[in-house]
This record gives sequence, structure tokens and C-alpha cells, in this order.
Amino acid sequence: MGSKELKAGRTFLVRADHDSDLIEFITEWAKTQAVAVASFTAIGALKHAKLGFYDQQKHEYTEEVLFEPQELASCIGNISTKEEAPFVHAHAVLADRNGNTKAGHLLAGKVFAAEIYVTELLGEKIVRRKDDVTGLALWNI
Amino acid sequence: MGSKELKAGRTFLVRADHDSDLIEFITEWAKTQAVAVASFTAIGALKHAKLGFYDQQKHEYTEEVLFEPQELASCIGNISTKEEAPFVHAHAVLADRNGNTKAGHLLAGKVFAAEIYVTELLGEKIVRRKDDVTGLALWNI
Amino acid sequence: MGSKELKAGRTFLVRADHDSDLIEFITEWAKTQAVAVASFTAIGALKHAKLGFYDQQKHEYTEEVLFEPQELASCIGNISTKEEAPFVHAHAVLADRNGNTKAGHLLAGKVFAAEIYVTELLGEKIVRRKDDVTGLALWNI
Repeated sequence: MGSKELKAGRTFLVRADHDSDLIEFITEWAKTQAVAVASFTAIGALKHAKLGFYDQQKHEYTEEVLFEPQELASCIGNISTKEEAPFVHAHAVLADRNGNTKAGHLLAGKVFAAEIYVTELLGEKIVRRKDDVTGLALWNI
Repeated sequence: MGSKELKAGRTFLVRADHDSDLIEFITEWAKTQAVAVASFTAIGALKHAKLGFYDQQKHEYTEEVLFEPQELASCIGNISTKEEAPFVHAHAVLADRNGNTKAGHLLAGKVFAAEIYVTELLGEKIVRRKDDVTGLALWNI
Repeated sequence: MGSKELKAGRTFLVRADHDSDLIEFITEWAKTQAVAVASFTAIGALKHAKLGFYDQQKHEYTEEVLFEPQELASCIGNISTKEEAPFVHAHAVLADRNGNTKAGHLLAGKVFAAEIYVTELLGEKIVRRKDDVTGLALWNI
């Protein structure tokens, strides 16, 4: 187990660019603002999206592309450091025009509109390192 | 793109009134507490609810009423200003008695029980203005 | 209605133990850190899970066990006091290998990996007491 106490840093409301990719957008925003560690939530709508589902035995992602517009009904994520750059890890629940949902690891999502609330966390960097048990890049805490 | 740094203000835990409408409840609560900008999360259960799904081409919402009781499995939202009054924007993931989900923009939800965590954000007002590209009332940041 | 202003306390990023139960893990972590009141979000993956759905008329939970691995697509929860001990209340949206979702009250979830963001809240204890109208143990605020 790992538990790290951090100091609450800056807080931001961010409006993602129309037609940007949400994950790339947050990554670039973090670089611009020099945010190294953060937690965030987001809501909005995506034009299309790609979700990932981790195979806990094969240690690889399967992916599904959702070509139809989706409500971004929930997005919870964090920013930490991977390979010396800001890395965004986000999970999302998406809903189609009938409210039917798909959810998973948000690999990509073309923004129709998105409102993001970010809390920066100050202290030591949180770095992702390969974890042999899960095959995932987990926090070094 | 817009990005606004705000100062963390007051934090609250709020228990919504049984039989109130969750959106109206939060709106009235914000007026009472003079909260102009905030981010919140909520969990609980709703007696019934109305979800909206935005048609990204026609620029209008379609709606679906869920008449059965629902777990409020996730609710992420924010408070900003629209037409000079506090405006609550919330998305929700709902689950019926079998755990089957519907999700989208939470237009209304009759509270069975709801626990809300609110972080007030201080600084300039965040005002919603009509955005021509999306047809939505987006933050002026 | 109840509304309680609390002071933002410590903030933590926490990595749950592989193979622990997520609810028990957070409960034990709260005891270790002496966290009495908090709000949290989490994302990750579970090996299996148990969800509850509250019957608003019979005032009892029905449960469903999900035996397959699940993405923890969303988890929103809080920590307060029940029967003089830290009590974790969490709702979750889970997604299977095809992104299909189940959601509800998270009763148990065997951790594959989980990243938790906790904000401690300082002030008076928030105590859960039986509420006759809903049959639930709600906050005394």
C-alpha cells in the first residue's frame, strides 16, 4: 500500500477546446500551468471516444471506439508523472442519445464541450513505475 | 480554451431534503449560502429522475424520464452564474434495482436521500453565455 | 435539510493494496490516519465486486455479485462516523471487458489496482443515525 499526504495547491475551472482530444488537452494544459500532480473531475459531451478495458490476466488493454456522440456523464482522473512528463489517467462513463452507457479507461475523446475542475496537489512528484503484479504503471507511493 | 484559477473557499457536506428536487435543492442551497462558484459530487438515491441528452447537431435536448427508483451512483456537477442567478450543471449515472444504468445530464431528480460534497471557489464570477458553436451556455473563461 | 461547513484538512493520494477489499482498505486507512470525515473519489480495476441497491419501500438492500473483472469507472464516496468508528459510504460504476456497466452502492470490491484521492474535512464529527423516513443511517446534520 501507498499513501502520500500532499498539500492542496491551486484550483482551476477549465473549459476544454471544442474539437480537441480531452486527454491530450488536459495533458497540454498541465504542461502550460506546470501542474505536476492533480486530481480532477469533468462533465460534458464528446463527439466520439475510445475506451479501454484492462485484461487482468493478459495484462493488455482491449479497446472500443464509440463513433456516436456521447454525454460525458462522469470523468474522474488524476495527473502524475510518467517518463518525466505529465500523465493523465482518466476513467469515464459515457451515455449515448438514449442514455445507454459504456464505461472504462478513457483513452481518447473528441470534445464537444467539457468542464473540468482541477485541484493541484503540491509536494513530491508522484511517478508512475511499472508494477509487475498488475502490469500497470502505478504510483511510486 | 479557457482556464481560470480560483481560490478554494468554504467546504460543505450537505444532506438534501427527502422529496426535494436535487437540482432545485442545490440551487436554493447555493443562494442561501451565497455560493456563486463551486464544484460538487453527490451520491444517494432518487425516487425518479429526468435525464437529458444533447443532440450535438440539432442543438437541443432529448429527455427521458425514469419513473422507477434509482441509485444515484455518480453525480458530478458545478455551480456558476447564468442570467444573474446561481446555476447548477450536473451529470449523473443512475442505476435501477438490478444495477442497470442510464446516464446523462441530470435535469431533475426527486431525492430519496443524497449526500453532497461541495467545494466553493472564490474569485471572479463564472458566467454562462450562449456559445454559437455548440448552442450551449458555456463558461466565459 | 442539513448543511455543515467544514474546514479542508489534509489531502492524500492513496494506492490501495492489490487483493484487498476496497471498502475495508479505505476504512482501515482512515483509522490509521485518524481521518474522521472525508470525501473521496477513486478509479482503477476490481477483480470482482458486490453492489447493493436499496429498496426504497421495503427498506432493505438487494445485492448483486459481479464475478468477472471490472473497471472501476467511477467511485465517489465519503467517510463519516457510524457506531463510533469510521464508516465508508461509496457508490461505484463498474464496467466489464466490453464496457457494459453495472452501478450502485459498492458493498465490496477486490482490488486489482485503485487510485484514491481523499480530502479530509475538519470540524465536528459527522455521525450517522438511523433515519425513520428512509430506513438509512444518515448524517446528523
